[in-house]
Amino acid sequence: MPAQKLWSGRFEKPTRPEVESFTASVHYDHRLSEEDVRGSLAHARMLKGVGLLAASDLKAIEKGLEGIRQDLLAGRIPLGSSLEDIHTHIEAELTKRVGEPGKRLHTGRSRNDQVATDLRLWVRDAGAEIVSRIDALQRALLAHARSARRLVLPGYTHLQRAQPIAAAQHFLCHVERLERDRGRVLCALERANECPLGAGALAGSTLPLDRRRTARLLGFARPVANSIDAVSARDFAAEFLFALSMLSIHLSQWAEEMVLWATEEFGFLDLPEEVCTGSSLMPQKKNPDTLELIRGKSARVLGNLVRMLALLKGLPSGYNRDLQEDKEALFDAYDTTAACLEQARIVVGGIRFRVDRIRQVLDAGFLDATALAEHLVTKGVPFRDAHGWVGRWVRSCIARRKMLKDLSLEVFREASPRIDRSVYKVLGAENVVAAYKTEGSAGFREAAAAIRRWEKNLCKRSRNHRACRP
Amino acid sequence: MPAQKLWSGRFEKPTRPEVESFTASVHYDHRLSEEDVRGSLAHARMLKGVGLLAASDLKAIEKGLEGIRQDLLAGRIPLGSSLEDIHTHIEAELTKRVGEPGKRLHTGRSRNDQVATDLRLWVRDAGAEIVSRIDALQRALLAHARSARRLVLPGYTHLQRAQPIAAAQHFLCHVERLERDRGRVLCALERANECPLGAGALAGSTLPLDRRRTARLLGFARPVANSIDAVSARDFAAEFLFALSMLSIHLSQWAEEMVLWATEEFGFLDLPEEVCTGSSLMPQKKNPDTLELIRGKSARVLGNLVRMLALLKGLPSGYNRDLQEDKEALFDAYDTTAACLEQARIVVGGIRFRVDRIRQVLDAGFLDATALAEHLVTKGVPFRDAHGWVGRWVRSCIARRKMLKDLSLEVFREASPRIDRSVYKVLGAENVVAAYKTEGSAGFREAAAAIRRWEKNLCKRSRNHRACRP
Amino acid sequence: MPAQKLWSGRFEKPTRPEVESFTASVHYDHRLSEEDVRGSLAHARMLKGVGLLAASDLKAIEKGLEGIRQDLLAGRIPLGSSLEDIHTHIEAELTKRVGEPGKRLHTGRSRNDQVATDLRLWVRDAGAEIVSRIDALQRALLAHARSARRLVLPGYTHLQRAQPIAAAQHFLCHVERLERDRGRVLCALERANECPLGAGALAGSTLPLDRRRTARLLGFARPVANSIDAVSARDFAAEFLFALSMLSIHLSQWAEEMVLWATEEFGFLDLPEEVCTGSSLMPQKKNPDTLELIRGKSARVLGNLVRMLALLKGLPSGYNRDLQEDKEALFDAYDTTAACLEQARIVVGGIRFRVDRIRQVLDAGFLDATALAEHLVTKGVPFRDAHGWVGRWVRSCIARRKMLKDLSLEVFREASPRIDRSVYKVLGAENVVAAYKTEGSAGFREAAAAIRRWEKNLCKRSRNHRACRP
Amino acid sequence: MPAQKLWSGRFEKPTRPEVESFTASVHYDHRLSEEDVRGSLAHARMLKGVGLLAASDLKAIEKGLEGIRQDLLAGRIPLGSSLEDIHTHIEAELTKRVGEPGKRLHTGRSRNDQVATDLRLWVRDAGAEIVSRIDALQRALLAHARSARRLVLPGYTHLQRAQPIAAAQHFLCHVERLERDRGRVLCALERANECPLGAGALAGSTLPLDRRRTARLLGFARPVANSIDAVSARDFAAEFLFALSMLSIHLSQWAEEMVLWATEEFGFLDLPEEVCTGSSLMPQKKNPDTLELIRGKSARVLGNLVRMLALLKGLPSGYNRDLQEDKEALFDAYDTTAACLEQARIVVGGIRFRVDRIRQVLDAGFLDATALAEHLVTKGVPFRDAHGWVGRWVRSCIARRKMLKDLSLEVFREASPRIDRSVYKVLGAENVVAAYKTEGSAGFREAAAAIRRWEKNLCKRSRNHRACRP
Repeated sequence: MPAQKLWSGRFEKPTRPEVESFTASVHYDHRLSEEDVRGSLAHARMLKGVGLLAASDLKAIEKGLEGIRQDLLAGRIPLGSSLEDIHTHIEAELTKRVGEPGKRLHTGRSRNDQVATDLRLWVRDAGAEIVSRIDALQRALLAHARSARRLVLPGYTHLQRAQPIAAAQHFLCHVERLERDRGRVLCALERANECPLGAGALAGSTLPLDRRRTARLLGFARPVANSIDAVSARDFAAEFLFALSMLSIHLSQWAEEMVLWATEEFGFLDLPEEVCTGSSLMPQKKNPDTLELIRGKSARVLGNLVRMLALLKGLPSGYNRDLQEDKEALFDAYDTTAACLEQARIVVGGIRFRVDRIRQVLDAGFLDATALAEHLVTKGVPFRDAHGWVGRWVRSCIARRKMLKDLSLEVFREASPRIDRSVYKVLGAENVVAAYKTEGSAGFREAAAAIRRWEKNLCKRSRNHRACRP
Repeated sequence: MPAQKLWSGRFEKPTRPEVESFTASVHYDHRLSEEDVRGSLAHARMLKGVGLLAASDLKAIEKGLEGIRQDLLAGRIPLGSSLEDIHTHIEAELTKRVGEPGKRLHTGRSRNDQVATDLRLWVRDAGAEIVSRIDALQRALLAHARSARRLVLPGYTHLQRAQPIAAAQHFLCHVERLERDRGRVLCALERANECPLGAGALAGSTLPLDRRRTARLLGFARPVANSIDAVSARDFAAEFLFALSMLSIHLSQWAEEMVLWATEEFGFLDLPEEVCTGSSLMPQKKNPDTLELIRGKSARVLGNLVRMLALLKGLPSGYNRDLQEDKEALFDAYDTTAACLEQARIVVGGIRFRVDRIRQVLDAGFLDATALAEHLVTKGVPFRDAHGWVGRWVRSCIARRKMLKDLSLEVFREASPRIDRSVYKVLGAENVVAAYKTEGSAGFREAAAAIRRWEKNLCKRSRNHRACRP
Repeated sequence: MPAQKLWSGRFEKPTRPEVESFTASVHYDHRLSEEDVRGSLAHARMLKGVGLLAASDLKAIEKGLEGIRQDLLAGRIPLGSSLEDIHTHIEAELTKRVGEPGKRLHTGRSRNDQVATDLRLWVRDAGAEIVSRIDALQRALLAHARSARRLVLPGYTHLQRAQPIAAAQHFLCHVERLERDRGRVLCALERANECPLGAGALAGSTLPLDRRRTARLLGFARPVANSIDAVSARDFAAEFLFALSMLSIHLSQWAEEMVLWATEEFGFLDLPEEVCTGSSLMPQKKNPDTLELIRGKSARVLGNLVRMLALLKGLPSGYNRDLQEDKEALFDAYDTTAACLEQARIVVGGIRFRVDRIRQVLDAGFLDATALAEHLVTKGVPFRDAHGWVGRWVRSCIARRKMLKDLSLEVFREASPRIDRSVYKVLGAENVVAAYKTEGSAGFREAAAAIRRWEKNLCKRSRNHRACRP
Repeated sequence: MPAQKLWSGRFEKPTRPEVESFTASVHYDHRLSEEDVRGSLAHARMLKGVGLLAASDLKAIEKGLEGIRQDLLAGRIPLGSSLEDIHTHIEAELTKRVGEPGKRLHTGRSRNDQVATDLRLWVRDAGAEIVSRIDALQRALLAHARSARRLVLPGYTHLQRAQPIAAAQHFLCHVERLERDRGRVLCALERANECPLGAGALAGSTLPLDRRRTARLLGFARPVANSIDAVSARDFAAEFLFALSMLSIHLSQWAEEMVLWATEEFGFLDLPEEVCTGSSLMPQKKNPDTLELIRGKSARVLGNLVRMLALLKGLPSGYNRDLQEDKEALFDAYDTTAACLEQARIVVGGIRFRVDRIRQVLDAGFLDATALAEHLVTKGVPFRDAHGWVGRWVRSCIARRKMLKDLSLEVFREASPRIDRSVYKVLGAENVVAAYKTEGSAGFREAAAAIRRWEKNLCKRSRNHRACRP
């Protein structure tokens, strides 16, 4: 007799093969086999604890599951769509190996609470891996910030040169964003950290199952409080997907800047050849493919988020088969984001600034205009008037192809007689960056302070990712 | 001389009117006028504190802004696209009213940090309103759960009758989901609760601004740590939008069920006429429009989320004008979700169960099949075998148009000689609901416990929404 | 010497293995191997035609490619990420097999125009398959409409019973929608049907390539007119994805109705066991999984559409590596939609109406109210007044648990003295359906006409899918 | 007696005011008032034609509706949510003005077919306006292409300099894309061009309505074939939204390039001050706001598309109130796209190339590398080998800060003894552009041909937008 579906008793006709293959999920949910075995072990131990399973049955189940786990890892158990999903495969295989004890495993359990449990276990591990890759990328960015401590870059708004900035603060801007992304992942994990097992199909059980025990055995904070909620809630998955989406969009923003900076036109940096590719036609090309893919793949993660939310819209409570579509979206978003984090770390480790080129460009674009206006303010000129004066000086400089520092003191004194030669101390990009005073600004002093703060943060960051630090 | 744009100094030609109207945002960002005045007051007070503004100037600004605030509220200040946005309107009006002190207000400030601050202030208030409406809906659901304490409903999976459930637990399932949505809103607010002011255009300032002071005056937890991040980060807005999306999708799930239950076919409940509408053609119709709109509007909130995330993808750091598109998405998602929460509360307060009809349907659908299988387990039958037995009994009942409780004891004893008449105690929907034992199950006992727990929760819920309780 | 990347000349350092695996696409673009071989053959023949390839070289290439095609099909060529993509694999293998002629194949070609060509070829075939599966589903729906010719169903608006309808017209409603989906696919194919080859990397070539010849050899209508456009346009792919999205949403709407009709509560139809599954816990369940998955998978296709559009947003012209992300979205959307179409066809072929149950429900819900109001109109009562009369009669029927046909003639005559016993001819669902008169209505006559029209349409539908029939 | 809802007969209790305002749509569907009047006039004329309306009644209705139309335009009719929507307002106002004939207007009509008709009329006009704005933008781009006929630009792939291109072909690339967008809009209009009127609520009518007549009077190609489909189909709206999304994404791609080219770093063009704005803080800034907004607003249109598709997912046929959410998505997407098209046209008309700067940059980036490789091919070197040779020459040029044309003939002859001094004719960007030969390439000759072709196209483009030209 071939292995059977878990529900063949009520049915007279077998499922059509095309339908079997359409409804099967084993080709991707085999990724949950490790989680499924862990969940089944915890369930079996709880059953034994409440007297629904004999000690000898538990022993047989434990041994059977351990063997199955290893054989699955080694690819020794063939997977096929006639057994629908990984859960059925494992239970069928168990019964084949250990006989009757295997038939007792599913006591008080439904695939509805089982699959929800497996998925939460998976999210927990996936989230932890993301957190650790964020940490690694933050460290790489910090190292870069440290080594570029004295470098000044043009800062942009509207992609037009705006004000000079300490390069380190640009890197730390991305560290800050990643920190919030990290916080979002941790919040999502916190909310996911409840155990559905014992909720059965949707209503719980008439058997005296000990849900707290199972939850504890699996390291969950507590059981999901409501059995109907336990089997049909997927907001934990959507929240994780959102955290990944936001993270990947942040990475896309960073990648866009790196692509720009690596153009011949900006010319701020050299990308290491190891992360570039060439062209099959144009022999001279060195393309920033890795960065372009990081940028593009954020669209993929966003697509997965939309898929999950549109899937959930309007679904009645209680399990609906639509929910089977949740897993691939999660797997794909996780794989993508994890890979992008790693690639970003590799790129950050390899980029080299073209310092000479950068120095050249700092002279153009009137990056010191705002500092000049602020200087006028310290001489009593209302800011709005100061802004107007500098605007006109810039216009005349453009016409005469000059820089602000080329203007004579008399010109400046039209704005106020209180202006003296000290005005030249805030002209020129380096001077400006040295002059920034406000907390968190893009000045040298604040950059150095931020570097120290982050060194401390990343150093003392404990391995314990449990706390929700938004 | 007409009021001028804040940046006319550098330009020789005026903006084209079509361009003015295309780039203007005042027709929607006037919603931020309250926030803008608050932010400007705090900024001015800080400027005075650090000696960049005379006490008399501050007084003039305070008086001027207060008058503007009131006149804006009363609609006495005409808004037009030649002044771009609400921020320009307020500053221009201030200068018109108080003269030179008005020109000093923008010292050390850019619209980039100003608008980011206003938007965070707005999100904080909007989030608090959402939280309070969630509370109100939870209370309405809880009241309903209490009054339906003894009601049994068919529970569904795959929209097929599955197991009987206590109606109260169905309502509390939605309370649980709302609680997580509430936690997500609070987490988003927590992360939004930092002050961008002092970040200027992107680099901070050469003036000795006191960012901690401004942050404190506005009730923010701290300044945003990095000035580049401060002006271009919008993840706080995206996170709030996600929380609203998830919430509105949860509401859509609840609305879908109510629409189903209000059909003639399910017939579980009567909707109050006050929340229904009729048909212009069909005189007999009573349509659940409110619920349909709640369901449909979740698509609108999702659209706003996609808009925000797609907007941010690939944007370089530093302010880009694309970001102006962030506000309408937020406003619309908030308005929509807030209205849906209120409507849901109204509907919950008005629905009446059709108890007779429900009692009828409980007999159909073999809702007691699982409890029967679990009973066999207590008699030593392995669950898989028990499932098979019951499956076959169901099939034969369908063929003979019987219920499980109509089967004779002999039939049941084929499965095990240990079965006795106590088997009939788990047959019939009411019996099953009384028999549920597991924590969080849909049984009477657990429902009562959950009601008590939630009564305590909602009662002691402090007004303080600060803590992130995922 | 190992096989090399196509662009190793300019590079001093090899690509890092992690980067190779991140940027490689061969694990999915191997699906384009057939298309790549076809494209290369056409390119080679054109090269020979314009004198850039000797006849003997062409022969070697033809033979080599044919062997490679077969070996790829048979899985005899190992694919690995060090050779990036299927295009590199094929060219490298060709050179390995035939030597120098292989090195001449890429003359005047870039992977940019090559991959765009392969993808258009793939879309053309995928689109044709979708069209043929739409045809098959339309035929199944038509057969069903024919066999349910005399069946009356309650028609719903707002999921409330509205008016009686001929079941056949309900099925034909879905046939109409599918026809527009088919038109959209054909329009997309028409716009995709241009050949990028000869556009090179983006600028065309200094060699005398004959683009018309290549296009003709591959069955394209013409070359893409502009070389820059040719390599970077992906709107053809997005349009195909939209057509698939709309189609899958239409299928989700149909599936939702079938799920509802298969509930115990509606009870309109029996789903064949072959397309259902059971429950691992609840022995009595028969779940409409196939339909739920069809419904849910529309979210997946939508996710793919969002992914494509978000990917393209803001990309400069000329190939960017982001575009590599286009393929999986297309493959997944196509696979999903094609499978859903097949499953829908299987389900349609198997559903059976529960005619007795349907007959019962037609009596409830005042489905004849509108027909009654229209009858009053024919007696001179203004429609608005007629609507009011019938509304009040319905209200009194509800109170007294009666049907409209139970009312006495005197009651009706309050509305107009011209009313006589003929009023009873439009009361009762069957009578109403027989009385519908307007073109395209849900009456028996119009249903029969529509069936005849569609029989003719589907019969004469030529195999030629070229014409854009919106 | 106050004006009443159209369905008050059946109801005992009035709608709650909060519910009225939640469900009302008049605050945005008043945009359909023109369409509603047109539709009502056509319906009334048809009613008279089939004898359901007296000639005198029609006259009264015609006069009444004309007056209402004018009063609505002039804002003389107050709109409020107690009358739900614009359709109710117009019918109520009509009855107030003309009495009983007004009550006869809604004969055989439901708001379901009425609103679907109005929306299709609106889409038809909106689509025509989009088409005409696309035409205008194409003409502006063409004029620009013509005036830049001799300009050479660096062409990019991966945002790295790739090959030189004729600037004209870059502009025409966008003309080509717009042409496909135009085709998509026309296809969408074609499919939308059917008349729902006569479908009633969903089932048609027992009255002898002449649907062909109504359709003809409103300029529709035909009635929608199936009455159930007529009231619930919104794929016509989704398709129009997709066409707008794709169009706005194309505009975002163009805008991104213009933003890049307007940076100091690229420096290819000057934007006219009239389309730029300045900074409130930084006096020197000239920001490309218009372009950034065009780029950003594509996210908004995409959000609207997602909203529509998610709205439709899983909705049963027959009108559901969720569909009310369709209109704002359409209105907003249309307004946005129409404005972006106009702004793009304004920008195109004002940009000036910085020819000197462009000439400088053409020397860098080895833009002639591919042409050199192709030259080697004409001397018998297999392309793969040619690619390798040139790659190595480029590498050595980078090391020695030289250009390819600086290399001596001996160097080139290492690749083949057949190479002679003619090799220098394909070196240098201008030479390369003059040497492009393939159809549609970015060479001078092909650019000139394309300009002539487009001049003819746009000139003879008839006013008739009916035909679907994909």
